[in-house]
Amino acid sequence: MMMEQKIRAQAEAAKAASYMLASLRTDVRDTALHAMADALQSNADAILRENAADMEDAAAAGMRASYLDRLRLDARRISEMAEGLRLTAALPDPLGKEDYSVRRPNGLEIRRMRVPLGVVGMIYEARPNVTADAIGLCLKSGNAVLLRGGADALRSNTAIAATLSRAAYDAGIPAGAIQLLAMKDRAAVDVMTHLTGLLDVVIPRGGAGLIRRIVESSSVPVIETGAGVCHIYVDRAADLDMAYRIVRNAKVSRPSVCNAAETLLVHDAVAADFLPQMAAVLRADGVELRGCPAVRSILPDVLLAAEEDWAEEYGDLILAVRIVQNADAAIDHINRYNTGHSEAIVTNDILTAHDFQQRVDASTVYVNASTRFTDGFEFGFGAEIGISTQKLHVRGPMGLEALTSTKYLVYGEGQVREAAPSASCG
Amino acid sequence: MMMEQKIRAQAEAAKAASYMLASLRTDVRDTALHAMADALQSNADAILRENAADMEDAAAAGMRASYLDRLRLDARRISEMAEGLRLTAALPDPLGKEDYSVRRPNGLEIRRMRVPLGVVGMIYEARPNVTADAIGLCLKSGNAVLLRGGADALRSNTAIAATLSRAAYDAGIPAGAIQLLAMKDRAAVDVMTHLTGLLDVVIPRGGAGLIRRIVESSSVPVIETGAGVCHIYVDRAADLDMAYRIVRNAKVSRPSVCNAAETLLVHDAVAADFLPQMAAVLRADGVELRGCPAVRSILPDVLLAAEEDWAEEYGDLILAVRIVQNADAAIDHINRYNTGHSEAIVTNDILTAHDFQQRVDASTVYVNASTRFTDGFEFGFGAEIGISTQKLHVRGPMGLEALTSTKYLVYGEGQVREAAPSASCG
Repeated sequence: MMMEQKIRAQAEAAKAASYMLASLRTDVRDTALHAMADALQSNADAILRENAADMEDAAAAGMRASYLDRLRLDARRISEMAEGLRLTAALPDPLGKEDYSVRRPNGLEIRRMRVPLGVVGMIYEARPNVTADAIGLCLKSGNAVLLRGGADALRSNTAIAATLSRAAYDAGIPAGAIQLLAMKDRAAVDVMTHLTGLLDVVIPRGGAGLIRRIVESSSVPVIETGAGVCHIYVDRAADLDMAYRIVRNAKVSRPSVCNAAETLLVHDAVAADFLPQMAAVLRADGVELRGCPAVRSILPDVLLAAEEDWAEEYGDLILAVRIVQNADAAIDHINRYNTGHSEAIVTNDILTAHDFQQRVDASTVYVNASTRFTDGFEFGFGAEIGISTQKLHVRGPMGLEALTSTKYLVYGEGQVREAAPSASCG
Repeated sequence: MMMEQKIRAQAEAAKAASYMLASLRTDVRDTALHAMADALQSNADAILRENAADMEDAAAAGMRASYLDRLRLDARRISEMAEGLRLTAALPDPLGKEDYSVRRPNGLEIRRMRVPLGVVGMIYEARPNVTADAIGLCLKSGNAVLLRGGADALRSNTAIAATLSRAAYDAGIPAGAIQLLAMKDRAAVDVMTHLTGLLDVVIPRGGAGLIRRIVESSSVPVIETGAGVCHIYVDRAADLDMAYRIVRNAKVSRPSVCNAAETLLVHDAVAADFLPQMAAVLRADGVELRGCPAVRSILPDVLLAAEEDWAEEYGDLILAVRIVQNADAAIDHINRYNTGHSEAIVTNDILTAHDFQQRVDASTVYVNASTRFTDGFEFGFGAEIGISTQKLHVRGPMGLEALTSTKYLVYGEGQVREAAPSASCG
């Protein structure tokens, strides 16, 4: 109960700040971001001390080396965080852009403008650099932010948020705009996702379990991110040399990320030609293959894929492989098992490519390129808050615009509306 | 349990249809809408018989006359429904529009296109015409639809949906695209709002209680609609004659709808001049006033407003009135009590007007016009699914674009991504 009151008080402070932030000038926000970057670097020693304490506790708790690596900060990583804030400052202001305007027959002038969302809730796991990234992107887009980082990074996150918050305030950002929940209790997430009326959105980043739990339980609107069961379909009209490169890149270049491929679908007519060399390429990189019976009739030493394999996000050097009779079967497989993230076809047939792009249901559908490009930076947004796998509000890589809403500004000269039969409500 | 299976089967049929709908040509959808309009009119007698049965049951259950009026259909209302479908057919196709495109340095061509959401869930109350409107707007935007109408209108809604569904199928719309839940059990709403992975969005229309319950419990993304605690602020620089007209229109022209005004805020400097005549105008229309103590010192016979009055959506000929010291106090009052719907200022001062528009947090902020204009038709969208009071996805009146999402289509020539330090996930 005390915890709930504390979180609510922080959210209320953020909400109060958000009203002032919404009309703060662009140059004030950008200058603050530069001051915050400088403060990170001049406070690096203090931040690294807190991070060392987090690292010590996590190592004592027996965390894996890969986890510790995500948690660790050093001078270079702090410089990268600072540089990230400066790059964010240099991006165009996402606020104030007009995206609809009309003068109505009655003389009313209606304009729709980009405005901040208000208060953004971010829930994330190990990496402390997300703290600085999220604060920077939220301030740039005129939002207040309530952060809940990983429990193991609490001392690091607290040091980063305190440093940035102080520098922001000194540069004219309203007090209360940056809030970090300084408690390890997992129940804090549940309190946060029920702050209806105080938080305008919750963005979870992390494991599938965390995201699922938040989507199922939150009464605050959520942007679902991150799950990626991505497919590459090698069509009968594929350039097979291109297919080897694309499949290898999509699986091997970074298997732990959400835009890596998990399943390879191959047209029956090219399977016998394509699969032996593809398997040799992938095995040279240590990839384990799991195939359907038809794959095993070409590659007898491949493990048999179970039904669960088609829906699994391995995040590892494992690839499920299935032979399909045609592009329709590939599209049906993808629409059944995918997570709405990124899908690719390799083909030289323009009609098949067009049909695949139209009918596959995903944020991003590639023709003759690797799924690994789904990323805010690769898409030219200059920033990324995460990758949305839902269809509401924003889909695919989220840049600054994903942190904005709209407002209609209407000018009249005393217009009133005549009573009309149409009903607006209920 | 049987109910849950039945609803799930209907949602799965809608989902399967949605994949085909997404690539259906514009002319097929528009031709179907015309055929559906014709079918409504040629089946009018059968629909009216079912409606008469609904009316009889509702009258026997002791429903109020205003409720029965919302439930009632007649030949004119059926013609209006048919005409609504024809007008929807005539609107521009919201699908296939490109709203972002870039060629990246590596040669990738990235385009973002408007696509359907997929399956739209609509939950609504008495009026059977919403059944036809919702079906028409969803099909026009390439979506399948799962409808849950009011229990008292079940026979009317079933007749309308069956008529439209048959005509749509005959005109080439995939089977299963139109689904109506044919059960009165209130638990059906709860099943529907937990069809994660089958429904892409739920749009509730109706009373505040229904909407609140759905927002709190749904695991499917929700677009919150309808609650409107709207304010008019009469500034010290207001044209008082204009203010009388605007306030009267916003309160009296249709008090039951969400864009009607519930609270009048008056600058202290003009209150003594303004309020006596304003009160006379409103009382002539039967409006009851509830005022703060300062209002009562000018109008002694006004009831004292309680704290709850500032947050109440009366939906009736009642108006709360408060005197404020300045525009800042008006903005603070509005941001504290409003529901994010529509707010208005009456002023001739350009700086005050600008400040009010920037700082008031609502879907629509008017200068010198009535809040009653917040409506999809008045805004030039040619349609309206509801009025969103949330900030995610869509805010304010929802036209066809609110029923769409986006998809990135990316063309390459074999591009693969180099391993890079930036992390996309977690």
